[in-house]
Amino acid sequence: MNQIFALDHLIRFAHCDPAAIVYFPDFLDLAHSTMEDWLREGVGCALPDLIRQRRIGTPTVNLQCDFIKPVEMGQILRYELRVQKLGNASVQLEHRGVRDGTEHVRISQTIVFMSLDTQKAVPIPADLRPAIEKYLCTTS
Amino acid sequence: MNQIFALDHLIRFAHCDPAAIVYFPDFLDLAHSTMEDWLREGVGCALPDLIRQRRIGTPTVNLQCDFIKPVEMGQILRYELRVQKLGNASVQLEHRGVRDGTEHVRISQTIVFMSLDTQKAVPIPADLRPAIEKYLCTTS
Amino acid sequence: MNQIFALDHLIRFAHCDPAAIVYFPDFLDLAHSTMEDWLREGVGCALPDLIRQRRIGTPTVNLQCDFIKPVEMGQILRYELRVQKLGNASVQLEHRGVRDGTEHVRISQTIVFMSLDTQKAVPIPADLRPAIEKYLCTTS
Amino acid sequence: MNQIFALDHLIRFAHCDPAAIVYFPDFLDLAHSTMEDWLREGVGCALPDLIRQRRIGTPTVNLQCDFIKPVEMGQILRYELRVQKLGNASVQLEHRGVRDGTEHVRISQTIVFMSLDTQKAVPIPADLRPAIEKYLCTTS
Repeated sequence: MNQIFALDHLIRFAHCDPAAIVYFPDFLDLAHSTMEDWLREGVGCALPDLIRQRRIGTPTVNLQCDFIKPVEMGQILRYELRVQKLGNASVQLEHRGVRDGTEHVRISQTIVFMSLDTQKAVPIPADLRPAIEKYLCTTS
Repeated sequence: MNQIFALDHLIRFAHCDPAAIVYFPDFLDLAHSTMEDWLREGVGCALPDLIRQRRIGTPTVNLQCDFIKPVEMGQILRYELRVQKLGNASVQLEHRGVRDGTEHVRISQTIVFMSLDTQKAVPIPADLRPAIEKYLCTTS
Repeated sequence: MNQIFALDHLIRFAHCDPAAIVYFPDFLDLAHSTMEDWLREGVGCALPDLIRQRRIGTPTVNLQCDFIKPVEMGQILRYELRVQKLGNASVQLEHRGVRDGTEHVRISQTIVFMSLDTQKAVPIPADLRPAIEKYLCTTS
Repeated sequence: MNQIFALDHLIRFAHCDPAAIVYFPDFLDLAHSTMEDWLREGVGCALPDLIRQRRIGTPTVNLQCDFIKPVEMGQILRYELRVQKLGNASVQLEHRGVRDGTEHVRISQTIVFMSLDTQKAVPIPADLRPAIEKYLCTTS
């Protein structure tokens, strides 16, 4: 309960725009990478296995983002992932991008478990649900 | 008043993920491209000129996105841009991604006019404001 | 014979790095976009159709690139595509990135027609070959 | 002498195209990331410091790439970096992308040390040269 999955991201040259700060769509790409590592290490089922073996994808259906402070090339931004809401087929993830104890980015990302064959939502696989629940925030 | 800036985007191979649909951060990149063309053609000041001549950038500070229906490689997605709110230094843009009369994506993007020298918000330049106002939705 | 396929690319904010010039992998992405439009408009078979209807992909197997002059945000770079060599299953494309009559980028890209089912090279489809030949340089 | 700088890259969802293999420009992005980590850890001067403190960039002026075998989502590709040639202002890097002892990608990348103020090539800084020389291949 209330577990957090954390991942450090080095901000690379390619993430940065002509103002030498992160181009905002790259913050979403980092959120996806964080989700991938959480699925593999936190939930116990890597996304490529979910896709290839179970024919289930996890498209993002909603985003709410605050880009609070700019992040520069060469800095380390720690993403902290929590589960905000857990539905039958959907998971609302919260990513807080933190550096030196200060939140720079907050992203709320809702994903849906979807059959790649029918293109319809499917219940979160029962064997994965308990591991996902561990990251559920009981209070925010 | 109530003017709309529309831009057609061809969904390319590189926008698509292993499920052959658009990887969601690329929808944000398309929103940025739409904003760039709107600044140049709709507002009358291209972003590179704003950056280089006036030393003003337009970082995105907030996003709210609904990814309603998947979009596939080879399809044309029309972005329709409106101004939802106009502040002293900020503009809230709404992008509707439409195909065959159906909305597939809706993105609300708030940008702030920011001095690249002081890193602080600055009022929207007075000569650009009237052109921006033309795109303001009086009713949504 | 000796036909050229040309495509203008606007260099966008997102293509540019902290030095405000194109990040070199983006020149390759622009080459892929040029190839896509050439397949659709010049050869008569769009890549998504090739992939979905014929189950043929066109992976790139070799690249040789000279990045001659930097290209900046807001500039237009015209890609001129020619066919340098035509094999049984492979096509060597040359992209010249030109601005104001000056070559800024030269990319030689070899693609192979490959079955997506067997992952093996397949002969260039006979109905597409004549259109491809029109772009073959007889002299360089 | 003959030192190798190695970096493991996890192939992510976002690197892959609709054929579920790496989209080739992303191999170049991985090469750039490898070069960045090599500059910081192998050479002792991080690229952001080179850019901000010394006003020197390292644009890529030439590439030669063989994409030998496809690489799939979820696989680890190890990049092994060597210095092939060392000039006054330029360095030719070789990246071998290896998995399970098999080379999948080979990239030769020539970078030039360039003043960001004059846009002209400058000699490799004398304090960095000895560290770079350690990676020089005496025989290939």
